[in-house]
Amino acid sequence: MAQNDPATLDSVAARAGVSRQTVSNVLRHPTRVADATRDRVLDAIRESGYRPSLPARQLATRRAHAIAVRAERQQDGISGLVLDAFYHGLAEAGQHNGLRVLLYPQPEDEAAEVATIDELVHTGAADAVVLTATSADDERPAHLRDNGTTFCAFGRPWGHDDAPHDWVDVDGAVGTSLAVRHLLDSGRRSIAYLGWPGDGAEPSTGSDRRRGWLEVVGHAALGAPVEAHSLNDAAAAQAAVAELLGRPDAPDAIVCASDTLALGAHRAALAAAGAGAPVTVVGFDATPVAAALGLASVAQPIDQVAHLCIDLLTGRFETPDRPARGLLVPPVLRLPS
Amino acid sequence: MAQNDPATLDSVAARAGVSRQTVSNVLRHPTRVADATRDRVLDAIRESGYRPSLPARQLATRRAHAIAVRAERQQDGISGLVLDAFYHGLAEAGQHNGLRVLLYPQPEDEAAEVATIDELVHTGAADAVVLTATSADDERPAHLRDNGTTFCAFGRPWGHDDAPHDWVDVDGAVGTSLAVRHLLDSGRRSIAYLGWPGDGAEPSTGSDRRRGWLEVVGHAALGAPVEAHSLNDAAAAQAAVAELLGRPDAPDAIVCASDTLALGAHRAALAAAGAGAPVTVVGFDATPVAAALGLASVAQPIDQVAHLCIDLLTGRFETPDRPARGLLVPPVLRLPS
Repeated sequence: MAQNDPATLDSVAARAGVSRQTVSNVLRHPTRVADATRDRVLDAIRESGYRPSLPARQLATRRAHAIAVRAERQQDGISGLVLDAFYHGLAEAGQHNGLRVLLYPQPEDEAAEVATIDELVHTGAADAVVLTATSADDERPAHLRDNGTTFCAFGRPWGHDDAPHDWVDVDGAVGTSLAVRHLLDSGRRSIAYLGWPGDGAEPSTGSDRRRGWLEVVGHAALGAPVEAHSLNDAAAAQAAVAELLGRPDAPDAIVCASDTLALGAHRAALAAAGAGAPVTVVGFDATPVAAALGLASVAQPIDQVAHLCIDLLTGRFETPDRPARGLLVPPVLRLPS
Repeated sequence: MAQNDPATLDSVAARAGVSRQTVSNVLRHPTRVADATRDRVLDAIRESGYRPSLPARQLATRRAHAIAVRAERQQDGISGLVLDAFYHGLAEAGQHNGLRVLLYPQPEDEAAEVATIDELVHTGAADAVVLTATSADDERPAHLRDNGTTFCAFGRPWGHDDAPHDWVDVDGAVGTSLAVRHLLDSGRRSIAYLGWPGDGAEPSTGSDRRRGWLEVVGHAALGAPVEAHSLNDAAAAQAAVAELLGRPDAPDAIVCASDTLALGAHRAALAAAGAGAPVTVVGFDATPVAAALGLASVAQPIDQVAHLCIDLLTGRFETPDRPARGLLVPPVLRLPS
């Protein structure tokens, strides 16, 4: 267990035969120090194994060298995996950029979340936030801007296209268009959509996913598009699809806005098919549930989104008054193995 | 965007009519300050909205007020959800105890992980680590102890029962015994086990889960116990169970060491059953996949584990030389809805 005392600014200074201030200058303002002196100090740092303390560095640079992200309370759990991958991507990209990733537990509501973030940033625990699960009536971005908080959203500023903040999102319309094209290639001719209530009424994740389906189905000119809507709950989705499959214009395939909806749709399809082949269901998010059921599903490139969020934030730290930037990443269709 | 300048130690001191040192004493050593002075300073802090800077507090207390946990690279994804819940629980329990939660990306191997943790702790970014995914041949605990790093493991010190560190784990044997009892109550009489290779050979998560099955099956005296083993992969599990179900002593139920194994077992059971009823499969981890397949599964109380890890760490911070403590938490059996 015995260890040498950890090296300090003072012991490095003594080893190099310079003042403590000179060591500090080498670390923070190396150009102010003569080459020969700088080399001697750097040698002493290496030999002693000195590592500047993070709190000291934070005080000196007035930067936390950390970003914060919300640890989500569990919902139905099916989409949970997307966040696991997001956390890993942020931690990895953060590490490459000298940024630590802090988790804060999901607060009760948006106001409490803004207060939590404000606390983290103004006490110097984090320099910026990655905002998740944005929506059209989201009040967090405006409050964060008012507080002068640096942030990047995973999710578009739905309905606020002129919003002056950085964001990264996955192009949901591309995802559902890939699903429809795959079904057309597989010989399906009546491809319905199962979305969430209110899809299409205003800009939202759901509207975006519905749009990709509608565009390709409309372009293929295969008759009036059929759709159903359900809360993001497997039992509700199953009931909605059971009704859809009982109609005279029952589809032969269903593109769903989530894997939770796809699970319900798949159950309804199995029940309606009896001994025959069920209608084909395609999900969204490529969760293990879709894989376990043998369903194709649209996969969000979550790792890429995480890396881009970190890129935008590090760019923002370097150039705080840079114009806001939004990046849309295309997903892929993952077929069952 | 306009805001008043944030309050500082100096502005609080001026408002209270005391020295900067007195404000600092009120914050860090309140008993050293006369009651009347302390009240005046606390009023000034409240009125000014002063929040001590985290880096300053870290330097003053020589504590990071943060713990670190690994952001897992994805494996098969099915068990991913358990970690989502763990992260949320840590962030929530940490917040209640004034501890932030830092994520570090899963390093290449154990040596790299120990180096990462060492860096986090010795640069003052974290005070301690919550270690995940422990195993019998895990070299991390011994190295962390040698480095003098405070940590709590989620997972037992398999085969090192005298290990002097804190840990929390879920009692897997209780989990599988609940599964077997449920199956006996449901009229099953030949209950097999599907585990991982090497289960039972040395202390491990798998051996522990197998033991719970074996004890109850043995106690019920229903003939020679039948078991199969497979890597944690659905296709491999399906092949192992297909073989099992073709034997003369084929079981009428299978308790599995994971939901990934349960997925494979379920597929084999469906294939073997044809139009009849498939053998009953019970999983472990209560993931969305088990729920989607309609399988019972053992649920780990992850939120409780996270809170207990934080409890052990905060207790350790207060009493660094307290004896090591291990806590075993019983799981529950979650039936399909």
